[in-house]
Amino acid sequence: MSRVFNFSPGPATLPEAVLRQAAEEMLDWQGSGMSVMEMSHRGKEFMGIHAEAVALVRELMGVPDHYKVLFVQGGAIGENAIVPMNLMGRSGRADYVNTGEWSTRSIAEAAKYGRVQVAASGEASGFTAIPPRASWQLDPGAAYVHICSNETIGGVQYHQLPDVGDVPLVADMSSDIMSRPIDVSRYGLIYAGAQKNMGPSGVTVVIVREDLLGHALAITPSAFNYQLQAENDSMYNTPPTYAIYILGLVLKHTRAHGGLAAMEAHNRAKAQLLYDFLDQSRYFSNRVAREDRSLMNVPFHLKDAALDAEFLKGAQARGMVQLKGHRLVGGMRASLYNALPLEAVQALVAYMQEFEAAHA
Amino acid sequence: MSRVFNFSPGPATLPEAVLRQAAEEMLDWQGSGMSVMEMSHRGKEFMGIHAEAVALVRELMGVPDHYKVLFVQGGAIGENAIVPMNLMGRSGRADYVNTGEWSTRSIAEAAKYGRVQVAASGEASGFTAIPPRASWQLDPGAAYVHICSNETIGGVQYHQLPDVGDVPLVADMSSDIMSRPIDVSRYGLIYAGAQKNMGPSGVTVVIVREDLLGHALAITPSAFNYQLQAENDSMYNTPPTYAIYILGLVLKHTRAHGGLAAMEAHNRAKAQLLYDFLDQSRYFSNRVAREDRSLMNVPFHLKDAALDAEFLKGAQARGMVQLKGHRLVGGMRASLYNALPLEAVQALVAYMQEFEAAHA
Repeated sequence: MSRVFNFSPGPATLPEAVLRQAAEEMLDWQGSGMSVMEMSHRGKEFMGIHAEAVALVRELMGVPDHYKVLFVQGGAIGENAIVPMNLMGRSGRADYVNTGEWSTRSIAEAAKYGRVQVAASGEASGFTAIPPRASWQLDPGAAYVHICSNETIGGVQYHQLPDVGDVPLVADMSSDIMSRPIDVSRYGLIYAGAQKNMGPSGVTVVIVREDLLGHALAITPSAFNYQLQAENDSMYNTPPTYAIYILGLVLKHTRAHGGLAAMEAHNRAKAQLLYDFLDQSRYFSNRVAREDRSLMNVPFHLKDAALDAEFLKGAQARGMVQLKGHRLVGGMRASLYNALPLEAVQALVAYMQEFEAAHA
Repeated sequence: MSRVFNFSPGPATLPEAVLRQAAEEMLDWQGSGMSVMEMSHRGKEFMGIHAEAVALVRELMGVPDHYKVLFVQGGAIGENAIVPMNLMGRSGRADYVNTGEWSTRSIAEAAKYGRVQVAASGEASGFTAIPPRASWQLDPGAAYVHICSNETIGGVQYHQLPDVGDVPLVADMSSDIMSRPIDVSRYGLIYAGAQKNMGPSGVTVVIVREDLLGHALAITPSAFNYQLQAENDSMYNTPPTYAIYILGLVLKHTRAHGGLAAMEAHNRAKAQLLYDFLDQSRYFSNRVAREDRSLMNVPFHLKDAALDAEFLKGAQARGMVQLKGHRLVGGMRASLYNALPLEAVQALVAYMQEFEAAHA
């Protein structure tokens, strides 16, 4: 068996120790005589696994007591509708900040459920920078302000959290949750698909301030009503049990390796190695404003795009996969989530140096 | 390692051979150097796994070419809203047949999206029988007629498919899909959570006739719009990749063991063993009308409910778990899905004989 260096934007690489434990426990979880997949979600075994996963989210992120942690289904694209269904009812209108493809999609979806105002947009820069807070036109009567904390496709990330006053801040944190410490109390609601830093696809984490519950529109499906899910410990419908189990294993691994402060240091080291190389290279380049560069997703371009396929083929031959950039941006993209080891970035940079020497 | 006999109503027991293969492939799927959990859903490896799972659903169920097979998220409780969101727009009203708890919940949810008529109800019988087709009051202008093919809680199941004329028949088939051959062409839409006969929780199978696409209400979330999902091969949002992989393994196992005709014979043998025992017992009883008894979920009662806890404790000591009945019905429930071996029912009946001899 030979494991590759997997730079996938998500679903993404997971800690090998987690996969080993999952394989060992597959037929018999801790003497229960069952796989976790086979457990009733109402049985004491799975209830314990579920409660532990919730507690790990709370502990690692420092979630205050007046927030609920929910596990739901549908991913961030599902949440793009589910968030406004649950929150828009507070005033019928919401502010969105557009920083790229994922915010753009959030905006289009929210417009089905209320009046959406784009408070600021990075479109003029080709989404290579976060619009400065001073330029945001915020509506104090908005039900919430929505941001995407890290744009997986464009590779821009908030490094300072903007002050939005008393309006609840909602963040799509799919691609940088658990990658660094944050102050949850500054948010009204955080949502994230698990498949970058927390586990497999199929489970979505929602962290919501309790006072924001209870405003769902009448057309909200019960399975996606945050208040109903909060009242039922995320078991209003059958939860994605195995995905929650793996998420718990990943978060235990995260805690054992120092928690989110250690993750941030590890992620900064990887990103710096790659950005430093890009900044001195005469062949490879990154187009994002330095202060807004993502620590998670690094898009880069070759000087000669005609050699993209050759570059990818050489990477594959060296055991590095999923480096092709998103079609909207082109070129390459290296995703550097928590579970990607430093050695993967070292191998990538060494290959890029080699490639540059051969083609520059 | 000792595996139990797991009578859980779902998530439920899975074939041991499937779990073994999943464990073996956990760190490296077929030389890819990745777990299936780590694969990009857009990569060639997962695209192949996904296409094979769709093909297996089509082959096993004989799905005609003018139907789409979709894999979505949210389970049957999610679909209770998603189905009317997608289909109700055809006329604004729908007929529902109420055969128990699951139909009751479907009805309540659908009423958010249009005018719902209960065409027939088994309520007068305490939901121990399917209302005969002759008693149904059908609206020829309904967008669809909804049934629940097997009520997991009450233990009633359709054994003859009612003729509903030209109105599309929609079936919640969560707890009996893949348990017997059916004629898909008689349905407009079939939906089912995977966690009974097909795999883990977290993936929902939708089989929909193509002419029913394109009528979604404006408030339908994109992630749950059947037409968008059909146009994008169920990848409009990131699919629950690992759950789809396991579903594929389970369906391959189903095919290797003779397909749905063989499953039906196997399931009939198990159910008959248990019902035959119940019918001659003076201590245990099943209250469902004989012609409507479920082959999948068998609720039964002890003569003395005060001994329920003792019965369950003895079962647990003999390696039989998840036999407690649903709180709405009380007593016990044995769920006999495809992956439950005949030996499990033999062991259960032997224990019930022993218990009866000791307490009758």
